[in-house]
Amino acid sequence: MRKIYVIKVGGNVIDNSEKLQLFLSNFAQIQEPKILIHGGGKIATQVAKGLGIENQMVDGRRITDEPMLNVVKMVYGGLINKQVVGSLQALKCNALGLTGADGNAVLARKRPVKEIDYGFVGDIEKVNADFIKSLLSLGVSPVFAPLTYDINGQILNTNADTMAAEIAKALTQDYKVNLIYCFEKKGVLRDAGDDTSVIEKLNKESYEKYKSEGAIYAGMIPKLDNAFQALSSGVANVIICEADDILEAQKGKQGTLISL
Amino acid sequence: MRKIYVIKVGGNVIDNSEKLQLFLSNFAQIQEPKILIHGGGKIATQVAKGLGIENQMVDGRRITDEPMLNVVKMVYGGLINKQVVGSLQALKCNALGLTGADGNAVLARKRPVKEIDYGFVGDIEKVNADFIKSLLSLGVSPVFAPLTYDINGQILNTNADTMAAEIAKALTQDYKVNLIYCFEKKGVLRDAGDDTSVIEKLNKESYEKYKSEGAIYAGMIPKLDNAFQALSSGVANVIICEADDILEAQKGKQGTLISL
Repeated sequence: MRKIYVIKVGGNVIDNSEKLQLFLSNFAQIQEPKILIHGGGKIATQVAKGLGIENQMVDGRRITDEPMLNVVKMVYGGLINKQVVGSLQALKCNALGLTGADGNAVLARKRPVKEIDYGFVGDIEKVNADFIKSLLSLGVSPVFAPLTYDINGQILNTNADTMAAEIAKALTQDYKVNLIYCFEKKGVLRDAGDDTSVIEKLNKESYEKYKSEGAIYAGMIPKLDNAFQALSSGVANVIICEADDILEAQKGKQGTLISL
Repeated sequence: MRKIYVIKVGGNVIDNSEKLQLFLSNFAQIQEPKILIHGGGKIATQVAKGLGIENQMVDGRRITDEPMLNVVKMVYGGLINKQVVGSLQALKCNALGLTGADGNAVLARKRPVKEIDYGFVGDIEKVNADFIKSLLSLGVSPVFAPLTYDINGQILNTNADTMAAEIAKALTQDYKVNLIYCFEKKGVLRDAGDDTSVIEKLNKESYEKYKSEGAIYAGMIPKLDNAFQALSSGVANVIICEADDILEAQKGKQGTLISL
Protein backbone atom coordinates (compact mmCIF):
# COMPACT_ATOMS: atom_id res chain seq x y z
CA MET A 1 0.00 0.00 0.00
CA ARG A 2 1.04 3.56 -0.66
CA LYS A 3 2.40 5.62 2.22
CA ILE A 4 0.64 8.75 3.42
CA TYR A 5 1.67 11.28 6.05
CA VAL A 6 -0.93 12.86 8.30
CA ILE A 7 0.82 15.62 10.22
CA LYS A 8 -0.49 17.75 13.04
CA VAL A 9 1.27 20.99 13.86
CA GLY A 10 0.38 22.80 17.04
CA GLY A 11 -0.16 26.30 18.24
CA ASN A 12 3.40 26.95 19.43
CA VAL A 13 4.61 26.68 15.82
CA ILE A 14 1.65 28.62 14.38
CA ASP A 15 2.45 31.51 16.74
CA ASN A 16 6.06 31.79 15.57
CA SER A 17 6.31 32.84 11.92
CA GLU A 18 9.95 31.73 11.56
CA LYS A 19 9.28 28.29 13.03
CA LEU A 20 6.13 27.99 10.91
CA GLN A 21 7.98 28.87 7.71
CA LEU A 22 10.69 26.29 8.45
CA PHE A 23 8.09 23.66 9.25
CA LEU A 24 6.16 24.37 6.04
CA SER A 25 9.28 24.23 3.88
CA ASN A 26 10.01 20.78 5.35
CA PHE A 27 6.38 19.70 4.91
CA ALA A 28 6.47 20.81 1.26
CA GLN A 29 9.49 18.55 0.68
CA ILE A 30 7.65 15.36 1.63
CA GLN A 31 7.19 13.48 -1.63
CA GLU A 32 4.43 11.12 -0.51
CA PRO A 33 0.76 12.17 -0.31
CA LYS A 34 0.33 14.31 2.79
CA ILE A 35 -2.29 16.00 4.91
CA LEU A 36 -1.75 18.81 7.40
CA ILE A 37 -3.92 19.55 10.41
CA HIS A 38 -3.07 22.80 12.14
CA GLY A 39 -3.93 23.91 15.63
CA GLY A 40 -5.02 27.31 16.75
CA GLY A 41 -2.36 29.06 18.76
CA LYS A 42 -2.73 32.22 20.76
CA ILE A 43 -4.05 34.37 17.92
CA ALA A 44 -7.68 33.42 18.62
CA THR A 45 -7.26 34.50 22.24
CA GLN A 46 -5.71 37.80 21.11
CA VAL A 47 -8.42 38.50 18.55
CA ALA A 48 -11.13 37.63 21.08
CA LYS A 49 -9.51 39.98 23.59
CA GLY A 50 -9.29 42.73 20.96
CA LEU A 51 -13.00 42.32 20.25
CA GLY A 52 -13.85 42.35 23.95
CA ILE A 53 -14.92 38.70 23.95
CA GLU A 54 -14.22 36.87 27.16
CA ASN A 55 -12.13 33.73 26.85
CA GLN A 56 -13.81 31.12 29.04
CA MET A 57 -11.67 28.19 30.14
CA VAL A 58 -12.70 25.22 32.29
CA ASP A 59 -9.99 22.73 33.29
CA GLY A 60 -7.66 24.19 30.67
CA ARG A 61 -10.22 23.71 27.92
CA ARG A 62 -11.73 26.55 25.99
CA ILE A 63 -15.49 26.94 26.21
CA THR A 64 -16.74 27.84 22.74
CA ASP A 65 -19.73 30.14 23.13
CA GLU A 66 -21.17 31.84 20.05
CA PRO A 67 -18.89 34.90 20.02
CA MET A 68 -15.86 32.63 20.52
CA LEU A 69 -17.08 30.32 17.75
CA ASN A 70 -17.10 33.30 15.39
CA VAL A 71 -13.54 34.10 16.46
CA VAL A 72 -12.27 30.56 15.80
CA LYS A 73 -14.08 30.47 12.45
CA MET A 74 -12.24 33.68 11.57
CA VAL A 75 -8.84 32.81 13.00
CA TYR A 76 -8.60 29.05 12.35
CA GLY A 77 -10.66 28.86 9.16
CA GLY A 78 -9.55 32.19 7.68
CA LEU A 79 -6.40 33.82 8.99
CA ILE A 80 -4.23 30.80 9.86
CA ASN A 81 -5.56 28.40 7.23
CA LYS A 82 -5.16 30.86 4.34
CA GLN A 83 -1.73 31.96 5.53
CA VAL A 84 -0.58 28.33 5.61
CA VAL A 85 -2.12 27.53 2.21
CA GLY A 86 -0.57 30.62 0.59
CA SER A 87 2.87 29.81 2.04
CA LEU A 88 2.67 26.19 0.87
CA GLN A 89 1.63 27.27 -2.63
CA ALA A 90 4.68 29.56 -2.78
CA LEU A 91 6.73 26.46 -1.85
CA LYS A 92 5.16 24.61 -4.82
CA CYS A 93 3.05 22.41 -2.58
CA ASN A 94 -0.50 22.41 -3.99
CA ALA A 95 -2.33 22.95 -0.71
CA LEU A 96 -6.09 23.21 -0.27
CA GLY A 97 -7.55 24.59 2.94
CA LEU A 98 -10.51 22.83 4.48
CA THR A 99 -12.73 22.64 7.49
CA GLY A 100 -14.88 19.60 8.17
CA ALA A 101 -17.79 21.34 6.41
CA ASP A 102 -15.94 21.72 3.10
CA GLY A 103 -16.79 18.81 0.83
CA ASN A 104 -18.53 17.25 3.85
CA ALA A 105 -15.04 16.12 4.88
CA VAL A 106 -15.50 15.64 8.64
CA LEU A 107 -18.93 15.38 10.17
CA ALA A 108 -19.25 15.83 13.94
CA ARG A 109 -21.84 16.12 16.65
CA LYS A 110 -22.10 18.95 19.14
CA ARG A 111 -20.77 17.58 22.41
CA PRO A 112 -23.68 16.72 24.70
CA VAL A 113 -23.86 18.81 27.86
CA LYS A 114 -22.98 16.76 30.93
CA GLU A 115 -21.15 18.36 33.84
CA ILE A 116 -19.62 21.02 31.62
CA ASP A 117 -21.22 22.77 28.65
CA TYR A 118 -18.32 23.11 26.24
CA GLY A 119 -20.50 25.06 23.83
CA PHE A 120 -19.95 24.69 20.09
CA VAL A 121 -17.45 21.86 20.32
CA GLY A 122 -17.64 18.90 17.97
CA ASP A 123 -16.97 15.23 18.59
CA ILE A 124 -16.13 13.59 15.28
CA GLU A 125 -18.65 11.11 13.89
CA LYS A 126 -17.45 10.43 10.37
CA VAL A 127 -14.48 11.26 8.18
CA ASN A 128 -15.35 11.27 4.47
CA ALA A 129 -12.33 9.24 3.35
CA ASP A 130 -13.57 8.99 -0.25
CA PHE A 131 -13.61 12.76 -0.63
CA ILE A 132 -10.16 13.15 0.93
CA LYS A 133 -8.83 10.43 -1.38
CA SER A 134 -10.35 12.26 -4.39
CA LEU A 135 -8.48 15.41 -3.40
CA LEU A 136 -5.25 13.47 -2.95
CA SER A 137 -5.72 11.91 -6.38
CA LEU A 138 -5.78 15.45 -7.82
CA GLY A 139 -2.30 15.95 -6.35
CA VAL A 140 -3.66 18.25 -3.68
CA SER A 141 -2.41 18.38 -0.06
CA PRO A 142 -5.41 19.02 2.19
CA VAL A 143 -4.77 21.49 5.03
CA PHE A 144 -7.36 21.17 7.77
CA ALA A 145 -8.31 23.85 10.25
CA PRO A 146 -9.53 22.34 13.55
CA LEU A 147 -13.19 22.94 12.71
CA THR A 148 -15.88 20.41 11.90
CA TYR A 149 -19.63 20.72 11.41
CA ASP A 150 -22.82 18.90 12.23
CA ILE A 151 -25.67 17.74 10.05
CA ASN A 152 -27.51 21.03 10.62
CA GLY A 153 -24.64 22.99 9.11
CA GLN A 154 -23.39 24.23 12.47
CA ILE A 155 -19.62 24.79 12.47
CA LEU A 156 -17.97 23.27 15.55
CA ASN A 157 -14.61 23.83 17.24
CA THR A 158 -12.67 20.56 17.33
CA ASN A 159 -9.46 19.36 18.97
CA ALA A 160 -6.74 19.25 16.31
CA ASP A 161 -4.98 16.17 17.82
CA THR A 162 -8.22 14.20 17.65
CA MET A 163 -8.98 15.45 14.15
CA ALA A 164 -5.54 14.26 12.98
CA ALA A 165 -6.05 10.83 14.60
CA GLU A 166 -9.54 10.41 13.10
CA ILE A 167 -8.39 11.41 9.61
CA ALA A 168 -5.42 9.05 9.91
CA LYS A 169 -7.68 6.17 10.99
CA ALA A 170 -10.12 6.79 8.15
CA LEU A 171 -7.37 6.37 5.55
CA THR A 172 -5.97 3.04 6.75
CA GLN A 173 -8.04 1.02 4.26
CA ASP A 174 -6.17 2.60 1.36
CA TYR A 175 -2.86 3.80 2.72
CA LYS A 176 -0.03 2.86 5.03
CA VAL A 177 -0.70 5.79 7.33
CA ASN A 178 2.07 7.60 9.19
CA LEU A 179 0.70 9.96 11.79
CA ILE A 180 3.10 12.63 13.05
CA TYR A 181 2.35 14.86 16.02
CA CYS A 182 4.64 17.88 16.12
CA PHE A 183 5.00 19.52 19.48
CA GLU A 184 7.44 21.69 21.42
CA LYS A 185 9.78 18.89 22.62
CA LYS A 186 12.14 16.61 20.72
CA GLY A 187 9.92 13.61 21.51
CA VAL A 188 8.48 11.75 24.49
CA LEU A 189 10.99 12.26 27.32
CA ARG A 190 12.21 9.77 29.90
CA ASP A 191 12.80 12.75 32.20
CA ALA A 192 10.55 15.78 31.66
CA GLY A 193 13.35 18.00 32.97
CA ASP A 194 15.90 16.77 30.44
CA ASP A 195 15.22 17.65 26.80
CA THR A 196 17.86 15.18 25.61
CA SER A 197 16.18 12.16 27.24
CA VAL A 198 14.05 11.32 24.18
CA ILE A 199 12.59 7.80 24.15
CA GLU A 200 13.37 6.60 20.63
CA LYS A 201 10.87 3.78 20.48
CA LEU A 202 7.80 3.24 22.56
CA ASN A 203 5.44 0.31 22.45
CA LYS A 204 2.43 -0.56 24.58
CA GLU A 205 4.56 -2.52 27.02
CA SER A 206 7.27 0.09 27.55
CA TYR A 207 4.57 2.79 27.73
CA GLU A 208 2.95 0.96 30.68
CA LYS A 209 6.34 0.64 32.33
CA TYR A 210 7.16 4.38 31.97
CA LYS A 211 3.70 5.25 33.23
CA SER A 212 4.02 3.06 36.31
CA GLU A 213 7.40 4.60 37.06
CA GLY A 214 5.89 8.08 36.77
CA ALA A 215 8.26 9.03 33.94
CA ILE A 216 5.32 9.64 31.57
CA TYR A 217 2.52 11.62 33.17
CA ALA A 218 0.03 14.49 32.90
CA GLY A 219 -0.76 15.83 29.38
CA MET A 220 1.41 13.23 27.69
CA ILE A 221 -0.95 10.42 28.73
CA PRO A 222 -4.04 11.43 26.68
CA LYS A 223 -1.73 12.18 23.71
CA LEU A 224 -0.20 8.70 23.89
CA ASP A 225 -3.53 6.99 24.57
CA ASN A 226 -4.73 8.68 21.39
CA ALA A 227 -1.63 7.42 19.55
CA PHE A 228 -2.09 3.81 20.72
CA GLN A 229 -5.76 3.97 19.84
CA ALA A 230 -4.84 5.10 16.29
CA LEU A 231 -2.37 2.22 16.05
CA SER A 232 -5.03 -0.25 17.20
CA SER A 233 -7.25 1.10 14.41
CA GLY A 234 -4.70 0.30 11.73
CA VAL A 235 -2.46 3.38 11.58
CA ALA A 236 0.99 2.00 10.72
CA ASN A 237 2.97 4.20 13.06
CA VAL A 238 2.82 7.37 15.09
CA ILE A 239 5.75 9.71 15.59
CA ILE A 240 5.91 12.44 18.21
CA CYS A 241 8.61 15.00 17.40
CA GLU A 242 9.53 18.65 17.22
CA ALA A 243 8.16 20.57 14.21
CA ASP A 244 11.68 21.29 12.91
CA ASP A 245 12.41 17.60 12.71
CA ILE A 246 9.73 16.06 10.51
CA LEU A 247 12.09 15.09 7.70
CA GLU A 248 14.57 13.50 10.11
CA ALA A 249 11.75 11.88 12.08
CA GLN A 250 10.48 10.28 8.85
CA LYS A 251 13.83 8.51 8.61
CA GLY A 252 13.69 7.44 12.25
CA LYS A 253 16.47 9.86 13.22
CA GLN A 254 14.44 12.15 15.46
CA GLY A 255 11.44 11.96 17.74
CA THR A 256 9.69 9.05 19.37
CA LEU A 257 8.42 6.25 17.15
CA ILE A 258 5.33 4.67 18.64
CA SER A 259 4.12 1.25 17.62
CA LEU A 260 1.96 -1.44 19.20
CA MET B 1 -22.05 21.71 -23.99
CA ARG B 2 -23.16 21.33 -20.41
CA LYS B 3 -24.61 24.36 -18.61
CA ILE B 4 -22.94 25.86 -15.57
CA TYR B 5 -24.05 28.68 -13.31
CA VAL B 6 -21.51 31.10 -11.88
CA ILE B 7 -23.33 33.22 -9.33
CA LYS B 8 -22.10 36.23 -7.42
CA VAL B 9 -23.92 37.29 -4.30
CA GLY B 10 -23.11 40.63 -2.73
CA GLY B 11 -22.64 42.12 0.67
CA ASN B 12 -26.23 43.30 1.15
CA VAL B 13 -27.38 39.65 1.16
CA ILE B 14 -24.44 38.43 3.26
CA ASP B 15 -25.31 41.02 5.93
CA ASN B 16 -28.91 39.82 6.25
CA SER B 17 -29.12 36.26 7.59
CA GLU B 18 -32.73 35.76 6.48
CA LYS B 19 -32.04 36.95 2.93
CA LEU B 20 -28.85 34.85 2.85
CA GLN B 21 -30.67 31.70 3.97
CA LEU B 22 -33.35 32.19 1.31
CA PHE B 23 -30.71 32.81 -1.36
CA LEU B 24 -28.75 29.70 -0.33
CA SER B 25 -31.83 27.49 -0.34
CA ASN B 26 -32.53 28.65 -3.92
CA PHE B 27 -28.88 28.19 -4.90
CA ALA B 28 -28.93 24.64 -3.48
CA GLN B 29 -31.90 23.82 -5.73
CA ILE B 30 -30.02 24.51 -8.96
CA GLN B 31 -29.49 21.11 -10.54
CA GLU B 32 -26.70 22.09 -12.93
CA PRO B 33 -23.07 22.43 -11.86
CA LYS B 34 -22.71 25.72 -9.99
CA ILE B 35 -20.15 28.01 -8.45
CA LEU B 36 -20.78 30.71 -5.88
CA ILE B 37 -18.66 33.81 -5.35
CA HIS B 38 -19.59 35.79 -2.27
CA GLY B 39 -18.81 39.37 -1.45
CA GLY B 40 -17.78 40.81 1.86
CA GLY B 41 -20.50 42.88 3.39
CA LYS B 42 -20.22 45.15 6.38
CA ILE B 43 -18.90 42.54 8.80
CA ALA B 44 -15.27 43.21 7.85
CA THR B 45 -15.76 46.90 8.61
CA GLN B 46 -17.36 46.04 11.96
CA VAL B 47 -14.61 43.59 12.93
CA ALA B 48 -11.92 46.09 11.89
CA LYS B 49 -13.62 48.75 14.00
CA GLY B 50 -13.84 46.35 16.94
CA LEU B 51 -10.11 45.67 16.66
CA GLY B 52 -9.32 49.37 16.39
CA ILE B 53 -8.21 49.09 12.77
CA GLU B 54 -8.94 52.13 10.66
CA ASN B 55 -10.97 51.54 7.52
CA GLN B 56 -9.27 53.53 4.77
CA MET B 57 -11.37 54.33 1.72
CA VAL B 58 -10.34 56.23 -1.41
CA ASP B 59 -13.04 56.96 -4.03
CA GLY B 60 -15.34 54.44 -2.37
CA ARG B 61 -12.73 51.70 -2.58
CA ARG B 62 -11.21 50.06 0.44
CA ILE B 63 -7.46 50.37 0.88
CA THR B 64 -6.18 47.03 2.08
CA ASP B 65 -3.23 47.65 4.38
CA GLU B 66 -1.79 44.74 6.35
CA PRO B 67 -4.12 44.93 9.37
CA MET B 68 -7.11 45.18 7.02
CA LEU B 69 -5.81 42.25 4.96
CA ASN B 70 -5.81 40.15 8.13
CA VAL B 71 -9.39 41.23 8.79
CA VAL B 72 -10.58 40.26 5.29
CA LYS B 73 -8.73 36.93 5.52
CA MET B 74 -10.61 36.30 8.76
CA VAL B 75 -14.02 37.59 7.71
CA TYR B 76 -14.18 36.64 4.02
CA GLY B 77 -12.05 33.47 4.14
CA GLY B 78 -13.20 32.25 7.56
CA LEU B 79 -16.40 33.63 9.03
CA ILE B 80 -18.52 34.22 5.92
CA ASN B 81 -17.12 31.42 3.76
CA LYS B 82 -17.51 28.73 6.43
CA GLN B 83 -20.99 29.96 7.38
CA VAL B 84 -22.08 29.71 3.74
CA VAL B 85 -20.48 26.29 3.25
CA GLY B 86 -22.04 24.91 6.45
CA SER B 87 -25.48 26.23 5.47
CA LEU B 88 -25.22 24.76 1.96
CA GLN B 89 -24.13 21.38 3.34
CA ALA B 90 -27.21 21.37 5.59
CA LEU B 91 -29.24 22.01 2.40
CA LYS B 92 -27.59 18.92 0.84
CA CYS B 93 -25.46 21.00 -1.53
CA ASN B 94 -21.91 19.65 -1.35
CA ALA B 95 -20.13 22.99 -1.06
CA LEU B 96 -16.39 23.52 -0.78
CA GLY B 97 -15.00 26.86 0.36
CA LEU B 98 -12.03 28.30 -1.50
CA THR B 99 -9.85 31.32 -1.89
CA GLY B 100 -7.67 31.76 -4.94
CA ALA B 101 -4.77 30.22 -3.03
CA ASP B 102 -6.57 26.92 -2.40
CA GLY B 103 -5.62 24.43 -5.09
CA ASN B 104 -3.91 27.34 -6.88
CA ALA B 105 -7.41 28.20 -8.13
CA VAL B 106 -6.99 31.92 -8.91
CA LEU B 107 -3.58 33.49 -9.25
CA ALA B 108 -3.32 37.28 -9.12
CA ARG B 109 -0.79 40.05 -9.01
CA LYS B 110 -0.61 42.77 -6.39
CA ARG B 111 -1.95 45.90 -8.05
CA PRO B 112 0.94 48.17 -9.06
CA VAL B 113 1.05 51.49 -7.23
CA LYS B 114 0.15 54.37 -9.55
CA GLU B 115 -1.77 57.35 -8.23
CA ILE B 116 -3.29 55.35 -5.41
CA ASP B 117 -1.68 52.56 -3.40
CA TYR B 118 -4.56 50.14 -2.91
CA GLY B 119 -2.37 47.94 -0.72
CA PHE B 120 -2.87 44.18 -0.78
CA VAL B 121 -5.32 44.11 -3.67
CA GLY B 122 -5.05 41.53 -6.41
CA ASP B 123 -5.65 41.82 -10.15
CA ILE B 124 -6.42 38.38 -11.51
CA GLU B 125 -3.84 36.82 -13.82
CA LYS B 126 -4.98 33.24 -14.23
CA VAL B 127 -7.94 31.08 -13.27
CA ASN B 128 -7.01 27.41 -12.93
CA ALA B 129 -9.97 26.05 -14.89
CA ASP B 130 -8.67 22.46 -14.81
CA PHE B 131 -8.69 22.42 -11.04
CA ILE B 132 -12.16 23.94 -10.83
CA LYS B 133 -13.41 21.37 -13.36
CA SER B 134 -11.89 18.56 -11.27
CA LEU B 135 -13.82 19.78 -8.24
CA LEU B 136 -17.02 20.01 -10.28
CA SER B 137 -16.48 16.47 -11.53
CA LEU B 138 -16.45 15.34 -7.88
CA GLY B 139 -19.96 16.79 -7.56
CA VAL B 140 -18.69 19.66 -5.47
CA SER B 141 -19.99 23.25 -5.66
CA PRO B 142 -17.04 25.61 -5.17
CA VAL B 143 -17.76 28.63 -2.96
CA PHE B 144 -15.21 31.39 -3.47
CA ALA B 145 -14.35 34.09 -0.98
CA PRO B 146 -13.15 37.27 -2.76
CA LEU B 147 -9.49 36.55 -2.03
CA THR B 148 -6.74 35.57 -4.44
CA TYR B 149 -2.99 35.17 -4.03
CA ASP B 150 0.23 35.89 -5.86
CA ILE B 151 3.12 33.67 -6.79
CA ASN B 152 4.89 34.55 -3.52
CA GLY B 153 2.03 33.15 -1.49
CA GLN B 154 0.68 36.59 -0.58
CA ILE B 155 -3.09 36.58 -0.06
CA LEU B 156 -4.77 39.50 -1.86
CA ASN B 157 -8.15 41.17 -1.50
CA THR B 158 -10.04 40.95 -4.79
CA ASN B 159 -13.24 42.42 -6.17
CA ALA B 160 -15.93 39.72 -6.10
CA ASP B 161 -17.65 40.94 -9.32
CA THR B 162 -14.38 40.65 -11.22
CA MET B 163 -13.59 37.29 -9.67
CA ALA B 164 -16.98 35.97 -10.81
CA ALA B 165 -16.44 37.28 -14.36
CA GLU B 166 -12.93 35.82 -14.60
CA ILE B 167 -14.03 32.40 -13.31
CA ALA B 168 -16.98 32.46 -15.74
CA LYS B 169 -14.69 33.32 -18.67
CA ALA B 170 -12.20 30.58 -17.77
CA LEU B 171 -14.91 27.91 -18.01
CA THR B 172 -16.27 28.81 -21.45
CA GLN B 173 -14.13 26.17 -23.22
CA ASP B 174 -15.99 23.39 -21.43
CA TYR B 175 -19.35 24.79 -20.40
CA LYS B 176 -22.18 26.97 -21.57
CA VAL B 177 -21.60 29.52 -18.85
CA ASN B 178 -24.42 31.49 -17.25
CA LEU B 179 -23.14 34.31 -15.08
CA ILE B 180 -25.60 35.75 -12.57
CA TYR B 181 -24.93 38.90 -10.59
CA CYS B 182 -27.27 39.22 -7.64
CA PHE B 183 -27.71 42.68 -6.27
CA GLU B 184 -30.21 44.74 -4.31
CA LYS B 185 -32.50 45.67 -7.23
CA LYS B 186 -34.81 43.56 -9.40
CA GLY B 187 -32.54 44.14 -12.41
CA VAL B 188 -31.11 46.97 -14.49
CA LEU B 189 -33.65 49.80 -14.26
CA ARG B 190 -34.88 52.16 -16.97
CA ASP B 191 -35.56 54.67 -14.20
CA ALA B 192 -33.35 54.42 -11.11
CA GLY B 193 -36.19 55.86 -9.02
CA ASP B 194 -38.70 53.22 -10.11
CA ASP B 195 -37.98 49.66 -8.93
CA THR B 196 -40.55 48.25 -11.30
CA SER B 197 -38.84 49.64 -14.43
CA VAL B 198 -36.68 46.56 -14.99
CA ILE B 199 -35.16 46.26 -18.45
CA GLU B 200 -35.87 42.63 -19.37
CA LYS B 201 -33.32 42.30 -22.14
CA LEU B 202 -30.26 44.35 -22.78
CA ASN B 203 -27.84 44.05 -25.67
CA LYS B 204 -24.84 46.13 -26.65
CA GLU B 205 -26.99 48.38 -28.83
CA SER B 206 -29.74 49.09 -26.31
CA TYR B 207 -27.08 49.53 -23.61
CA GLU B 208 -25.47 52.32 -25.64
CA LYS B 209 -28.88 53.91 -26.13
CA TYR B 210 -29.76 53.83 -22.41
CA LYS B 211 -26.33 55.21 -21.57
CA SER B 212 -26.64 58.09 -24.04
CA GLU B 213 -30.08 58.92 -22.60
CA GLY B 214 -28.60 58.93 -19.08
CA ALA B 215 -30.97 56.16 -17.93
CA ILE B 216 -28.01 53.91 -17.11
CA TYR B 217 -25.27 55.69 -15.23
CA ALA B 218 -22.82 55.68 -12.30
CA GLY B 219 -22.01 52.33 -10.66
CA MET B 220 -24.10 50.38 -13.14
CA ILE B 221 -21.70 51.23 -15.99
CA PRO B 222 -18.61 49.31 -14.75
CA LYS B 223 -20.90 46.40 -13.81
CA LEU B 224 -22.36 46.27 -17.32
CA ASP B 225 -19.01 46.85 -19.01
CA ASN B 226 -17.81 43.83 -17.05
CA ALA B 227 -20.86 41.86 -18.21
CA PHE B 228 -20.35 42.71 -21.90
CA GLN B 229 -16.66 41.91 -21.60
CA ALA B 230 -17.57 38.47 -20.20
CA LEU B 231 -19.99 37.95 -23.09
CA SER B 232 -17.29 38.93 -25.60
CA SER B 233 -15.07 36.29 -24.00
CA GLY B 234 -17.55 33.53 -24.61
CA VAL B 235 -19.86 33.60 -21.58
CA ALA B 236 -23.28 32.56 -22.93
CA ASN B 237 -25.32 35.05 -20.98
CA VAL B 238 -25.26 37.34 -17.99
CA ILE B 239 -28.24 37.98 -15.74
CA ILE B 240 -28.48 40.80 -13.24
CA CYS B 241 -31.22 40.19 -10.67
CA GLU B 242 -32.18 40.29 -7.03
CA ALA B 243 -30.80 37.49 -4.85
CA ASP B 244 -34.31 36.19 -4.05
CA ASP B 245 -34.98 35.66 -7.74
CA ILE B 246 -32.24 33.39 -9.06
CA LEU B 247 -34.55 30.46 -9.82
CA GLU B 248 -37.03 32.70 -11.65
CA ALA B 249 -34.20 34.55 -13.38
CA GLN B 250 -32.87 31.23 -14.69
CA LYS B 251 -36.19 30.78 -16.47
CA GLY B 252 -36.07 34.33 -17.82
CA LYS B 253 -38.92 35.43 -15.56
CA GLN B 254 -36.96 37.91 -13.44
CA GLY B 255 -34.01 40.23 -13.78
CA THR B 256 -32.21 41.64 -16.77
CA LEU B 257 -30.86 39.22 -19.35
CA ILE B 258 -27.77 40.62 -21.00
CA SER B 259 -26.49 39.32 -24.30
CA LEU B 260 -24.30 40.69 -27.08
